[in-house]
Amino acid sequence: MRRTKIKDLFLDPKEEEVLIYAWVRTNRAQAQFGFLNVNDGSVVTNLQVVYEQTLPNFAEISKFRVGVSVLVKGNVILTPNAKQPLEVHATEVKMLGDCPENYPIQPKRHTKEFLREVAHLRPRTNLFNAVFRIRSVAAMGIHSYFQSHGYLYVHTPLITCADCEGSDQMFKITTLNLNDLPKGEDGKVDFSKDLFGKQAWITGSGQLQGETFAMAFSDIYTFGPTFRTENSNTQTHANEFWMIEPEMAFCDLEGLMDIEEEMLKYVIKYVMDNAPAEIDFCDAFVEKGLKEKLTNILNAKFVRISHHDVVDLLLAQNRKWEFTPSYLEDIAKEHERFLTEHFNGPVFVTNWPKDIKAWYMKVNPDNKTVAAVDLLVPKAGELMGGSQREEDLDVLLKRMEELHVDRANMEWYLDTRRYGGCVHSGFGMGFERLIMYLTGIDNIRDAIPYPRTPKNCEY
Amino acid sequence: MRRTKIKDLFLDPKEEEVLIYAWVRTNRAQAQFGFLNVNDGSVVTNLQVVYEQTLPNFAEISKFRVGVSVLVKGNVILTPNAKQPLEVHATEVKMLGDCPENYPIQPKRHTKEFLREVAHLRPRTNLFNAVFRIRSVAAMGIHSYFQSHGYLYVHTPLITCADCEGSDQMFKITTLNLNDLPKGEDGKVDFSKDLFGKQAWITGSGQLQGETFAMAFSDIYTFGPTFRTENSNTQTHANEFWMIEPEMAFCDLEGLMDIEEEMLKYVIKYVMDNAPAEIDFCDAFVEKGLKEKLTNILNAKFVRISHHDVVDLLLAQNRKWEFTPSYLEDIAKEHERFLTEHFNGPVFVTNWPKDIKAWYMKVNPDNKTVAAVDLLVPKAGELMGGSQREEDLDVLLKRMEELHVDRANMEWYLDTRRYGGCVHSGFGMGFERLIMYLTGIDNIRDAIPYPRTPKNCEY
Repeated sequence: MRRTKIKDLFLDPKEEEVLIYAWVRTNRAQAQFGFLNVNDGSVVTNLQVVYEQTLPNFAEISKFRVGVSVLVKGNVILTPNAKQPLEVHATEVKMLGDCPENYPIQPKRHTKEFLREVAHLRPRTNLFNAVFRIRSVAAMGIHSYFQSHGYLYVHTPLITCADCEGSDQMFKITTLNLNDLPKGEDGKVDFSKDLFGKQAWITGSGQLQGETFAMAFSDIYTFGPTFRTENSNTQTHANEFWMIEPEMAFCDLEGLMDIEEEMLKYVIKYVMDNAPAEIDFCDAFVEKGLKEKLTNILNAKFVRISHHDVVDLLLAQNRKWEFTPSYLEDIAKEHERFLTEHFNGPVFVTNWPKDIKAWYMKVNPDNKTVAAVDLLVPKAGELMGGSQREEDLDVLLKRMEELHVDRANMEWYLDTRRYGGCVHSGFGMGFERLIMYLTGIDNIRDAIPYPRTPKNCEY
Repeated sequence: MRRTKIKDLFLDPKEEEVLIYAWVRTNRAQAQFGFLNVNDGSVVTNLQVVYEQTLPNFAEISKFRVGVSVLVKGNVILTPNAKQPLEVHATEVKMLGDCPENYPIQPKRHTKEFLREVAHLRPRTNLFNAVFRIRSVAAMGIHSYFQSHGYLYVHTPLITCADCEGSDQMFKITTLNLNDLPKGEDGKVDFSKDLFGKQAWITGSGQLQGETFAMAFSDIYTFGPTFRTENSNTQTHANEFWMIEPEMAFCDLEGLMDIEEEMLKYVIKYVMDNAPAEIDFCDAFVEKGLKEKLTNILNAKFVRISHHDVVDLLLAQNRKWEFTPSYLEDIAKEHERFLTEHFNGPVFVTNWPKDIKAWYMKVNPDNKTVAAVDLLVPKAGELMGGSQREEDLDVLLKRMEELHVDRANMEWYLDTRRYGGCVHSGFGMGFERLIMYLTGIDNIRDAIPYPRTPKNCEY
């Protein structure tokens, strides 16, 4: 007999005989019958299994503890008037793996802080079952959007010797014995003895390599892990996270915003369509109004406004800002919040002061701003950041000099401007930030299976 | 006017006006007209653009060099009797980005060795255009298989402090200053000063964390980069590569083989359906007979045979083996080749001698073998390796002791056997090995965008 997943039972309810493998979430035993709530992780919803005294091992089943893995054979009974649309009347219930009394995941409310201490067990709770299912479905939504639009998925390297992101933000990697490092005559580490023959890091971005592929495939995206050494313990920072970095040839800033808007709506719709029970769960127990928030995004026309006009708007408000808006500076969290509330939807802020943005961004004709864009969304602030790239080699070289970007090891990147260069644009989106937005979860530690943060690298 | 991608032109040929952005691959100028072959990377096939003397910048176009990026407006003309099913008669051709005479990618045969020296430009060749498109489509095929079968995509951590894979095979990572490492009283590096407060590595496998998620979601898979420090320069080794590691609860060795076989067929079919031009290209220019090889896999019933029976079979052959087959040892390349030829298709070799396999594999009742399985495919040898996992805690602990696996930091993993454990299985597939199989490419350096191998970490 083939196994049936609980998700498929609920998707297509019919009265039939089924074989279920799952874990016990609760067991309410009475004198003549009992109820097992079981879950197999295919959907956040539990299945109610009714077992009766007539079963030869009734007494034994009555004592099954929470966490036990079981085989259940039985008949689906549709219960259209009950809370659950169906239940299974067991003809056989067998314990596969026992679970002791001191099992940490009991059917009660656990704090998220406690669950982080048992990160290997927390996927067995409803909350993390829903969050990590949404994470998985969202990842598929992203791949689905880009692949159906002809993008090439490119695996840019993680290990790099091109020190282009600022090596102080990158982890060093080595195969050398740290307790006995080979030293050169200058007393410094002799990396010629290391595996790659020079110093190496794990990177914080695949953008530059991504650009080289966009110059061959037109439209590409990366989706992979990213590393930062930031020693900061906030709700939104982790030292390891996943990022999506699309890069499009023959695409300017306006085209970039079209893509960002279309992609976000696609992924939100994909998740709502493919993880409806999990979105319902988060709407009920994580962020009240989550579904309305997401539906509003689907129906919104995203506003496009320049950084300059944003500052005008902020200054024109009859209110005191904690951080005074400035034409030359970044905008603060309070400004972001005001903007998405003022426009009642997502806002693209464009054309930022060039001194606070990266060296590869396209310098505008005013020579004061760059063709960069941040997408702000209600309640969460910045969700994506991107720009048109500077395609003019001379301007780019000047910017690199101004910003002290080391040109050594970068000639390959500059070749994209030498050999058939073109207007092109790209953006980056932190995947965990998207997951937090899609679930309502407010701490990045709860949006990633095994979070790595300063002083925290368990499992 | 909206841009049309060249792939879409060929997919749905009709006489219409189009706007193309692409790069010039060849330019054959004659007195009164000329032909540009252009490619935008959406498909390996080039588009022929005819430009005539009547265009105001005809003389200029005639001099466009290889590599130039262009805008082409024109009319599609169907040419059913020609080599190409269509061409575009230009009404406008504009250079967007120039390309100098010394552009390394000229329309001639380049060696793969040369192209590795310009890895940032090689995607502009037909070969790498095809290979990396197949790579992208195969990645989507993998996600598509697992997601449509209800698996959870889990991002297991790359950074780890759990020294479970054997730390000598892993890269150390650190934020400490290597030229001035803090030392403890024992003269050794004081990792309490490091970002995570202890020594950390980047991992070679997500299996163990994957198992913890399988115990909650039933069916999970990972798909991400993996690192090995092996100092070996072969055609099949790289220090950074991508791997897929599915893990299934309530699944035994037979079920595991069913899944491996179904998945491989699904992905091959997905790639043949979604990258037909690229598969045709590889069939013509990389591995003659590629399509037949792949089609044979689709139609094959994979053989299942134990390691013991394999050795019987090898010894029964009337031939001299370079490596004498042994019931206690691994099988050699020559044996693998014999097996797939003998059975004329893929072969699962099961139940391996336990002393040459990993500690987490299920010990069989004979106490001599483990429930492990390698999948061998014609021409390539091992493509996947997996096993049923030892779910019995006592047996597992004994195996860890025998094989000197450090139990410290592993209690979280052992919890999967304590709390509702069950029969479960999983496998690993190196993604580059699959790509080599799908394209006929014989060197891993040509199956990955920017290969990392000993002494080689450019770009």
